[in-house]
Amino acid sequence: MLLEETLQKIRPLDRLIEPEAQRRLDSLTKPQGSLGKLEDLARCISVIQAKVPPRLGRKLLFVFAADHGITEERVSAYPKKVTAQMTYNFLRGGAAINVLARHCGVDIEVVDIGVDYEFPSPRGLRDCKVRRGTNNFTRMRREETVQSIETGIRLVEEVASENLFLLGAGDMGIGNTSSAAAVLCALTGALPRDVVGRGTGIDDATWGRKVASIEKGLDINRPDPKDPLDVIAKVGGLEIGAMIGVILGAAVLRIPMVLDGFISGAAAILARRLCPSVTDVLFASHLSAEKSHVLMLEDLKLAPLLDLEMRLGEGTGACLAMGLIEAAVRILREMATFESAGVKQRIL
Amino acid sequence: MLLEETLQKIRPLDRLIEPEAQRRLDSLTKPQGSLGKLEDLARCISVIQAKVPPRLGRKLLFVFAADHGITEERVSAYPKKVTAQMTYNFLRGGAAINVLARHCGVDIEVVDIGVDYEFPSPRGLRDCKVRRGTNNFTRMRREETVQSIETGIRLVEEVASENLFLLGAGDMGIGNTSSAAAVLCALTGALPRDVVGRGTGIDDATWGRKVASIEKGLDINRPDPKDPLDVIAKVGGLEIGAMIGVILGAAVLRIPMVLDGFISGAAAILARRLCPSVTDVLFASHLSAEKSHVLMLEDLKLAPLLDLEMRLGEGTGACLAMGLIEAAVRILREMATFESAGVKQRIL
Repeated sequence: MLLEETLQKIRPLDRLIEPEAQRRLDSLTKPQGSLGKLEDLARCISVIQAKVPPRLGRKLLFVFAADHGITEERVSAYPKKVTAQMTYNFLRGGAAINVLARHCGVDIEVVDIGVDYEFPSPRGLRDCKVRRGTNNFTRMRREETVQSIETGIRLVEEVASENLFLLGAGDMGIGNTSSAAAVLCALTGALPRDVVGRGTGIDDATWGRKVASIEKGLDINRPDPKDPLDVIAKVGGLEIGAMIGVILGAAVLRIPMVLDGFISGAAAILARRLCPSVTDVLFASHLSAEKSHVLMLEDLKLAPLLDLEMRLGEGTGACLAMGLIEAAVRILREMATFESAGVKQRIL
Repeated sequence: MLLEETLQKIRPLDRLIEPEAQRRLDSLTKPQGSLGKLEDLARCISVIQAKVPPRLGRKLLFVFAADHGITEERVSAYPKKVTAQMTYNFLRGGAAINVLARHCGVDIEVVDIGVDYEFPSPRGLRDCKVRRGTNNFTRMRREETVQSIETGIRLVEEVASENLFLLGAGDMGIGNTSSAAAVLCALTGALPRDVVGRGTGIDDATWGRKVASIEKGLDINRPDPKDPLDVIAKVGGLEIGAMIGVILGAAVLRIPMVLDGFISGAAAILARRLCPSVTDVLFASHLSAEKSHVLMLEDLKLAPLLDLEMRLGEGTGACLAMGLIEAAVRILREMATFESAGVKQRIL
């Protein structure tokens, strides 16, 4: 099984090259440490690539679209069909992620991992549909969960040879903050009323239904917190599965992987339970305005690069952070050293 | 006098176009408000330009280099001659600001406003030298202060017609965090020991000398907090003066102006006292790791876009923020609307 083979291949990163990266950073014409988190990023990428300075290359973000049966409970401000409509919007280049990807020089690949709509093979859409959306309760079969994860792994394997520098993953799926919140509750024991946020911007009554339906889903399904595949099958989603696959694939191939917000956060806390050292290659792009994203980042022990009160998904936060990570690597690659520039070192 | 004429021309921004900007933001294919601070930025730029969507154009950052007599007190970890050496580094493209400017598509213009070195007209350096650095105490004459400010105003007037979208200003000047801290103390009554930070990374003994020399400077000079020109002449610096000019010029011509860190923060709190409505066109790029930058931003009532623990200056923070502001404007210009994309509006 691809999933098991992949998990067995993931090794904790050796950090042998870190001192060399630090020496190079300290040789550049700036006070030591004065570029703060940009220096941390440059060092991390060096370690992941085992190369100083790291190479640059293609920045690629997968946008995984999938539907969620929990929309039957009327938990979202938007109708379910918006998932398919927004998928078309991605293909035409009119969504926020398209604009930000163009701005940041990020390639995007739109993947149908489980939209409840039969697309007539539109140009640019990658058909990896596992099923037409999940069910309301017991979202999918365990084999389908594995299939969604393995799809993510295969996608990474396929693109890894293409001079890849950074990977990212975003989501589109009406109802998916409900699934992501349910995953968080299942794994950590947190209560739905404490973690459920406003998603796309729901009113109090909808929020109440959202909490109740997650409670009911957890109560009926009893997902086993020690079995991540059970959690995702019972209360997760297909795009969450695919994102887990991307994370695992990135960890095997030592490709830096940039998380987006609440949905990819759910994927990451699941992936960490499948294999703790995946966090070695993960970057938290931003702190989402979705209420309990902060709990996911604490679980992952990752600090967000940006805090712009965004809560859109699609990969919008990941995209902006990819630009910052590239800037950090360019610092390490392009800045002059004190010696090469003939600048005096510190005297005190 | 150009300075007085400029101050008289600055008007508080009318915000007549704000509802139109908000309506456009809310028509785009995303949940309302879900792009957080990017939406705030897009709205602010619309208001400054009085145009929805705002136009894009050239992003230009001035890097002002100047020396500081206070270096005689051994307040910095680097020798004074580094100011001139780093100026050459800017011209050769090897400094952090060069790398980040290339990355973010920002043009930079390096200005000698007061380096204590006679450059033999190197290519690319704009010679606006007011004097060869300031003195240790009573930094400069009031006329020289005015000259530095008017230089900044003239630079903005000169470039404003060139399809300018965003302005920024950065600094290079060994010793200038001492001058900026002195300005903060003079204007707010804060005590040097409470506001003086570690600058380029100084040790405890140097920090003690830095605090003592600022105390001495304030004690000898008694700058009048009600007279910003007196404050800058007595305890400020030439690059701080030029940055005040850029801020005033941007305010007259309604050009968004992106602050960098601690040095441009000192310029902004002085500029606000010359004319309170300049803050209408100002953006705080980042929160510097320099200790009391936060006090400056509180004084300006501006929230920083980034917090990357940077403390380098040169315009590095401004440069990164310019990329975010451009992204925000592109959202307003390029995203599809619910209507144009055929996406269902919210149902709840």
